[in-house]
Formats: sequence, structure tokens, C-alpha cells
Amino acid sequence: MAGKVFFSVSMSLDGFVAPEPVPVEDELFAPARQNDPDVRRWMAQWMELQQWLLPQRFFRENAGLGEGGEEGPDNDIARETFERTGASVMGKRMFDLGEQSWPAEAPFHTPVFVVTHTKRDPWERPGGTTFHFVDDGIERALDRAREAAGDRDVRIAGGGTTILQYVNAGLVDEFSVAVSPVLFGAGTRLFDGVDASRIALEPLRAVPTRRVTHLTYAVRPR
Amino acid sequence: MAGKVFFSVSMSLDGFVAPEPVPVEDELFAPARQNDPDVRRWMAQWMELQQWLLPQRFFRENAGLGEGGEEGPDNDIARETFERTGASVMGKRMFDLGEQSWPAEAPFHTPVFVVTHTKRDPWERPGGTTFHFVDDGIERALDRAREAAGDRDVRIAGGGTTILQYVNAGLVDEFSVAVSPVLFGAGTRLFDGVDASRIALEPLRAVPTRRVTHLTYAVRPR
Repeated sequence: MAGKVFFSVSMSLDGFVAPEPVPVEDELFAPARQNDPDVRRWMAQWMELQQWLLPQRFFRENAGLGEGGEEGPDNDIARETFERTGASVMGKRMFDLGEQSWPAEAPFHTPVFVVTHTKRDPWERPGGTTFHFVDDGIERALDRAREAAGDRDVRIAGGGTTILQYVNAGLVDEFSVAVSPVLFGAGTRLFDGVDASRIALEPLRAVPTRRVTHLTYAVRPR
Repeated sequence: MAGKVFFSVSMSLDGFVAPEPVPVEDELFAPARQNDPDVRRWMAQWMELQQWLLPQRFFRENAGLGEGGEEGPDNDIARETFERTGASVMGKRMFDLGEQSWPAEAPFHTPVFVVTHTKRDPWERPGGTTFHFVDDGIERALDRAREAAGDRDVRIAGGGTTILQYVNAGLVDEFSVAVSPVLFGAGTRLFDGVDASRIALEPLRAVPTRRVTHLTYAVRPR
């Protein structure tokens, strides 16, 4: 049986999945920029959004940050999200940011299909992550990810624009949003431009934890 | 001991608390407009947003729709929200829409303070609701509501713009959002224009029900 196509993101209560971009995003992780007020603001907001995830035992292990960390429902959800994922799809902007910031042992440990307009040979990383660059559209990227995932699910990893393209194309089966107790006021909205007239949501699960509330929905045509 | 100042709204997952306004809002409830596609769209979206509330026993009783209806956590929350409220504050647009649509026995059963720019004598309705029109600012309207509420809480009833004025003025102690499983794509956003740099949220409670998830936060300065 084929797996599902899903995404899983952290969202501020006012609907943002990323802070307002910094002026020169390519240099977000450049050492020379780390005292730039825009970069510091971006980092601080991103940390707030991910505050539920960063201290979890699974996240720390998987990111190579060492052992230890919180255990409990947030940790279980982080681990389950990882374990169900047989392959990921991501946009080029997310890849570009990640290329600057992931450790050599990138945290996916599966094939990752990058939707891009340029050709590039696969990039194999230690620990089982191989990035494949797909230049013939989002459907083709998803087909390749499905094939690679086998029985497991395909995660649309991000960013927000790529997720929305898949939602509006009717290609997402379900998704989870960790609603973080923070207001951004500005940034990248998850659902900005969603084709609301064609999409219905069916609540599947709601898991409140001490830090966030995890909401999971099935996506249905309407 | 003085009560708290709170608001309680239903919000779409993409952050909207009201559908996109219809072109001639004053006539939203005019009989001649009920077949207008804009009005029908507005009504359908509003019903979806409030879908958790409309079938509840307490809501039906309080709105004069007769006995019967659902009981359970959604009903309990609707009743508790009503019972804690000693007085309400609302904006003039919400009042104008309500004046067209509330039954003679308006559903507040307490004093209501309407923030407006025009003078008008108090308007007493059967069942204990009296609308007072306050033309000297949001702080004065709140002071009068606090006084009227006594030990009970003051609810900033809406609409979205009025709620946000009170949030940004640092006058809201806590709030609840019923996150409805619907996407609007457009409309009135609850937090559009929020002074995010000055507001921190502390999660107090999260109550998932079959229909929605009720999230309650305390508002703190940051």
C-alpha cells in the first residue's frame, strides 16, 4: 500500500511559519552576519517558533547535538514524524538555507527531492541523506519521492511556498500544525494564497502539550 | 477583586475571525439581499466558523432558538464564557450588524458598552441587555464595563478591529480562540496589525473537542 503525502510545520498563533525574511537571505548563516540586527531578529523568532522541538531528545540526537533532552508527547511526535517519512520533497529556497546550516550528516536520513529550475547531480551526505534535484515540476518530484518512500509516507518538508503549491494542486493527504504560543505580526504565512474554495479540512487529532498544540487534519476536496 | 478582561472568538485555521466583508455591509441582513451571492458566501463562511457553537444547547437557549441541542465540552465552554461575563464591550460595526440580526431579547443579558463616535441614549432590551454608547475612547468604555461587571469579567466581544485595539493597548488579560477546521483564504484577520514585539503569550489551557480546539492564553508584556 502506498504511503500518504503530508506536511508538518510549526506555526505562530497568527499563522506564520517563518519570520519576515532578512534582506540578504543567502547570507542568513554567514558568520559575518551573526550580529546583524535583522539576522538576530530572524533567529530569535525562528527559535521561538521551534521552541517546542529544539529541547526534545529525538531532535537533539537526530541533529547531532548529543544525547539527553526532553521526553514526552512532543518528543514522541517529533520521532513519529521522522519515522513515518520515507522521502521528503523541498523547495529550492529551503534547500539553500539548509545547505548553509545542516550538519554534514543532514537530518533527513532518506532521499530528499529538491524542486528547482537548475540541473545538478545528486548530492550524497553521510548518514543516508541524498539530495536529488528535480527540474521538471512538483508532480514529478512527488512521483519520485513516492517511489523512493515505498510503504512509508512522503513529507513535503517546506518551505511555505512549496507546501502551498502541493496543497493547491490537491496532492496533500494530511498535515499537522504545531501551534506555537507566539505572535509574529509579519513573516511567511502558511496559507497565504490557499485555494480555500476547493479545500475542506477534517480534524483527525489534537494533542495539547505543555509547549504547543499539535493539530492534525485530513485534506478533502469540497 | 476585580474581574479579568478577555475575549473569546472563533478563528479559521488560517487566522480569520470574519469572512471577507460584503460590498454593502449595512444590508447584510436585509431580506432583499438574502439571495445575493456575496451575502450567501458571507453567511456560509460565518456558519462554518461558528459550526462548533450553533448546535450547542446553551447557544440555542440563549439565542431564543428553543430547547434541545448538543451537550458536552463545547456546550460547557459556551456556557462558562457567558457566565463569567459581567459586561461586554463592542465596536460600532459589530453593534450595527447585531442590531439587524439579534432577537429582541439580545443574547448578552448584561450591560454592553459600544465604542462609537456618536452620542446616543442607552438602549434597553428585554432580558437584561442594555447598550450604552461611549464616545470618549476605548479606555473609558472599558472603565465603565469594569464598573458594571463588578466581580465578574469583562468580555471584549468584537469585532476583530476593536479586539486588536484593546490588545495593542495592553488592556487584555487573557483570551480564547476556538480554532475551526476551515480555511477562508480572505477576510478579517484577528491579529493583523498586532504589536507583536510587545506581547508575549502564555498557554493556559487547550481543550480539543470533536468540532474545534479551544486554545486559551494569558497576555503578558515582553
